[in-house]
Amino acid sequence: MRRVLIAGLLAALPSLAAAEDDIVLRGMGSFHVGGRVAEVSGKPVRMIVRQPGGPQTKLDPNGQYMVEQMYVQYFLPKARKGRWPLLMWHGGGLTGVTYETTPDGREGWLTYFVRQGWDVYNSDAVERGRAGWAMVPDIFESEPVFLTKANLFERFRIGQGAGSYSPDPAKQRVLPGSQFPVAAYDNFVKQNVPRWTTTDDAILRAYIAEIDRVCPCAILFHSQAGQFGFGAAQARPDKVKALIAVEPAGIGDPQQAAALKGIPVLMLYGDFIAQDARWPQIRKNGIEFTEGIARAGGTVDVIDLPSVGIRGNSHLLMMDRNNQEIAALIQRWLERQGLYQESIAERRKQTSRRVIADQ
Amino acid sequence: MRRVLIAGLLAALPSLAAAEDDIVLRGMGSFHVGGRVAEVSGKPVRMIVRQPGGPQTKLDPNGQYMVEQMYVQYFLPKARKGRWPLLMWHGGGLTGVTYETTPDGREGWLTYFVRQGWDVYNSDAVERGRAGWAMVPDIFESEPVFLTKANLFERFRIGQGAGSYSPDPAKQRVLPGSQFPVAAYDNFVKQNVPRWTTTDDAILRAYIAEIDRVCPCAILFHSQAGQFGFGAAQARPDKVKALIAVEPAGIGDPQQAAALKGIPVLMLYGDFIAQDARWPQIRKNGIEFTEGIARAGGTVDVIDLPSVGIRGNSHLLMMDRNNQEIAALIQRWLERQGLYQESIAERRKQTSRRVIADQ
Repeated sequence: MRRVLIAGLLAALPSLAAAEDDIVLRGMGSFHVGGRVAEVSGKPVRMIVRQPGGPQTKLDPNGQYMVEQMYVQYFLPKARKGRWPLLMWHGGGLTGVTYETTPDGREGWLTYFVRQGWDVYNSDAVERGRAGWAMVPDIFESEPVFLTKANLFERFRIGQGAGSYSPDPAKQRVLPGSQFPVAAYDNFVKQNVPRWTTTDDAILRAYIAEIDRVCPCAILFHSQAGQFGFGAAQARPDKVKALIAVEPAGIGDPQQAAALKGIPVLMLYGDFIAQDARWPQIRKNGIEFTEGIARAGGTVDVIDLPSVGIRGNSHLLMMDRNNQEIAALIQRWLERQGLYQESIAERRKQTSRRVIADQ
Repeated sequence: MRRVLIAGLLAALPSLAAAEDDIVLRGMGSFHVGGRVAEVSGKPVRMIVRQPGGPQTKLDPNGQYMVEQMYVQYFLPKARKGRWPLLMWHGGGLTGVTYETTPDGREGWLTYFVRQGWDVYNSDAVERGRAGWAMVPDIFESEPVFLTKANLFERFRIGQGAGSYSPDPAKQRVLPGSQFPVAAYDNFVKQNVPRWTTTDDAILRAYIAEIDRVCPCAILFHSQAGQFGFGAAQARPDKVKALIAVEPAGIGDPQQAAALKGIPVLMLYGDFIAQDARWPQIRKNGIEFTEGIARAGGTVDVIDLPSVGIRGNSHLLMMDRNNQEIAALIQRWLERQGLYQESIAERRKQTSRRVIADQ
């Protein structure tokens, strides 16, 4: 069944844990997972100076390396209410910073879901951030891709498409009504890291290794990670209890759509898609993929945010000014799937009973 | 005054907050700081496939980039007891992961100092981890340096120097009595990221930008970051209240040693230095640098851990099996400098009074 709108999710409800409350953790930490040993041979020895003013020392690049691992950081709330851990997977050219503090300094989705009582595992995919990257072209075969300030502004539906960026903020053509915190745009650009186009298989392998270590779980993924979120769930369908696809730019294997029929899927899309050069096709790919899941008997909820009155969202929903509203929508959807131990409805009943008992 | 041993720091004292206690935070988050806009021009347009099976799309590398920023993640305990924030700066080829969970899964110094009540700011320097890195050779001029599994094992005083590493653990020649968790060595290797030898000035600029944003503060730094810790403190002496140099491999500007005379300095060195090929000279450089501080009237405490009965430490003190013991020594030193609002001695007195009052 593919459902296009879930009215009940949009009811105005108080936030469960406000930003001024304490965050009480029973633990926090990090680990690397996945990866393999790679051997490099036949390369010349280089002379390098390791410390300024220090001696020239030999650097022999030949030997064994650990490559293609990924980095995972976790936060475990004391009052655990999510039935399973919640994994957060970032998009292309980004890292787990995606879900941390927003570019303009507000709380991101990582802290939001920890406050709600989810064990959150936020990661840097293979090749990005704290995962590290490997020698080019010996191990990573292609040159890395760097994106300009203009490219991100124009492709992530912050500006009005090609040519809308200018180094002069006064001359930038921002989409009217944009929820993106444009004044802090440079801080978002600083979050970007180089990416490769030849590492998809390695990235997927490491995500599956994360699932094997941490799950059963729910997985929330963004943009490029569509292919990894759907793909890893297809590889481990019994270990994935929910998929939250935030503007997925990639999809899983359409031939294996039926593997996801037992996993509830939420798809979220922001604003300004129809007028964009690329996003109508990207959204269509995602919808067609989930239609395969629905045909196999699975359940997919698609929410185009403007159709439910939430307007102005860029591709970076988790950083937009209304990011808490969208996080609350995801939270309520997770509750509806029975993945939360104490639903808001139950808590309201308890509160009502207490009020009555107190009188 | 240069002091070589501080007996009182070594008194056996109970840990203030044990690993099984909750971690109560008033906030957590991250930001990027520093960096500049760089312009690239005259490069050819490439065609790339962004998603598997997707179309060839143009990638124009010309334009503006944000480069040379750094990443900072912070944890703010509710019961704040450190008078100033504590900044943690990692060594060469590493990231802030250095101070997180150890390779064998124990709590690292980040969590230790948060538990003690310090606002901790842990970072990835320019070019590393979540800081991102810039186009080579257009912006970063030199080729990156990758280190083999053998190199790290032999240079970080885990194995008995050159030739001591083997892919077969049974054939590795580990230093006798090593505190390093050798069985988890590969997990440490996974923490390593490429580094450059031409980015020191950019790294220092970004650290100074961090100081300007976060400090007054105490700064704990490791290995390569010796040059950044001492150097940034020389640039901002009024904002730095203490320096903890953990096996510094770099130093500040010896001509400016007097700038540090008002900042208490703790230098820590592990075991196996005398028998190592490189470390006697590296330690000598550090000691000579601090002698300049002492001659100018500053206070430097040097602790060679074996001389006070703490044996077996590798270059990675914060990951070694006795990492909590060494963290406790640093904690007591910070208390001695008057940088902690509630000293252990005071708390013991309060506990005694309460016991008496209860009787």
